[in-house]
Amino acid sequence: MSENPTIGWFEGRVHHYPLRVYYEDTDFSGVVYYANYLKFCERARSSFFRLVGFEHAALWEGDNPIAFAIRKIALDYKKPARIDDSLIVRTSYDRIKGPRLFVSQSVWRGDEELVTAVSEATAISPEGRPRRMPKNMMEALGPYLLPV
Amino acid sequence: MSENPTIGWFEGRVHHYPLRVYYEDTDFSGVVYYANYLKFCERARSSFFRLVGFEHAALWEGDNPIAFAIRKIALDYKKPARIDDSLIVRTSYDRIKGPRLFVSQSVWRGDEELVTAVSEATAISPEGRPRRMPKNMMEALGPYLLPV
Amino acid sequence: MSENPTIGWFEGRVHHYPLRVYYEDTDFSGVVYYANYLKFCERARSSFFRLVGFEHAALWEGDNPIAFAIRKIALDYKKPARIDDSLIVRTSYDRIKGPRLFVSQSVWRGDEELVTAVSEATAISPEGRPRRMPKNMMEALGPYLLPV
Amino acid sequence: MSENPTIGWFEGRVHHYPLRVYYEDTDFSGVVYYANYLKFCERARSSFFRLVGFEHAALWEGDNPIAFAIRKIALDYKKPARIDDSLIVRTSYDRIKGPRLFVSQSVWRGDEELVTAVSEATAISPEGRPRRMPKNMMEALGPYLLPV
Repeated sequence: MSENPTIGWFEGRVHHYPLRVYYEDTDFSGVVYYANYLKFCERARSSFFRLVGFEHAALWEGDNPIAFAIRKIALDYKKPARIDDSLIVRTSYDRIKGPRLFVSQSVWRGDEELVTAVSEATAISPEGRPRRMPKNMMEALGPYLLPV
Repeated sequence: MSENPTIGWFEGRVHHYPLRVYYEDTDFSGVVYYANYLKFCERARSSFFRLVGFEHAALWEGDNPIAFAIRKIALDYKKPARIDDSLIVRTSYDRIKGPRLFVSQSVWRGDEELVTAVSEATAISPEGRPRRMPKNMMEALGPYLLPV
Repeated sequence: MSENPTIGWFEGRVHHYPLRVYYEDTDFSGVVYYANYLKFCERARSSFFRLVGFEHAALWEGDNPIAFAIRKIALDYKKPARIDDSLIVRTSYDRIKGPRLFVSQSVWRGDEELVTAVSEATAISPEGRPRRMPKNMMEALGPYLLPV
Repeated sequence: MSENPTIGWFEGRVHHYPLRVYYEDTDFSGVVYYANYLKFCERARSSFFRLVGFEHAALWEGDNPIAFAIRKIALDYKKPARIDDSLIVRTSYDRIKGPRLFVSQSVWRGDEELVTAVSEATAISPEGRPRRMPKNMMEALGPYLLPV
């Protein structure tokens, strides 16, 4: 029984982030509201970063402050999730190209794939300009990227 | 000074929905959180429907209850919106094919395009099965679709 | 047909802010999720400020940057709001005491009072320390306060 | 390394629910947006219920469907939480009186108390009418209530 919030785990290069569907996630039609999957995906990406050693706050307040902004995302809603569902978000960081990070995610309930999300994030400075990821981040993420 | 909430207006076949950025929409990086544009887009699509004569509640409680679920959406984040910004969401309903509705949206601050969203909605029954839109809805939406 | 987002209006010292209930506001039980009334209240308070001449962004970036943080709020949920409802948030700024602003709000659907919210806000510096409101703000808010 | 989402644990009669602060929870002022503590509190109350054997979905779909609606809540914001913070929500179910459940909650970061929330929930039928909690729920909650 851990006192720490969920951070998920890796299976190979794929991060797994478990989450529960609460009232706040649903809408009157009885299913999870479509925007909330973007929250689930962001929690998973942040947990991926934390697990390999990086926190938003520290990155944002360091000497070369950076944050990650999503530039593009394409979502495919296959099946709806419902209140009380126990879900897993699978995240893989596929490629890095300059300041850009290419991400594949999917939301699962058991062995049912509910939603897929393919996105492109960019590392940015506080002024919003694209910024190369620092070397230690590149090295930490390296083992999780797709083989070239 | 109207007592009614904003419903927007049409310019040709394009619906325009104005909205303000509030605290709730932003995140600690200072800009609008990426999931919240999906809320803006949904407010705009709902207002489009309302302006041509359809309300979610009435559709959902009628004899042939239907709701609209987004099946696919692709977002392109070009520039960030910030607290207090006055934005316009432009929405066009491009095509209907069986139960499917193809939608193009964009979020503007003055003459700057901030975000685009291309989506596919499906009319569904309460059980989640695809359902053709009722005839009166087809007729009401007809004039706003792309010419064939 | 205004191109500007809703800002509401005053009737005497009471600000009125109209809003629509969208999908995002509801939960699977069919009514507005309880946390979302805090969003409605904040939109109304921000619009009150804007209507008397103050914007968050300008206050936060000025020479003596301030923002408002809610320190206490007590909510009473009397009746639920539902999808498509047209609501009005009534806001009065009752008293100012040093950095503290005492606020009374209520959410109405027609002549039904749905929710009341009594709160205490504090003007704070970016470091989070209480800060007296600037003189021009005191003067602008003066006419809307309860008579002493 | 559990595959299940966080459900928290009891220390005596007090439920402890750990959570992480993500982007979605913060606003442009750099801290957690005030409405989001209500989400945290609801996640904790739902997890309390789940841990003693009750799920929203099952309660809502059973023979005598009930859900819980918050009727009153009073929040005291003492200190702000920030991005990446690891928080614990402590929840105690103090008393049951007919359909009403009296709840005390607080949000902690280590040994700092950030927010307190005192609320009154009511068990309701799908039509929104107050309904006594079923006997098995009374028995399950009994050991966690304040001694009479």
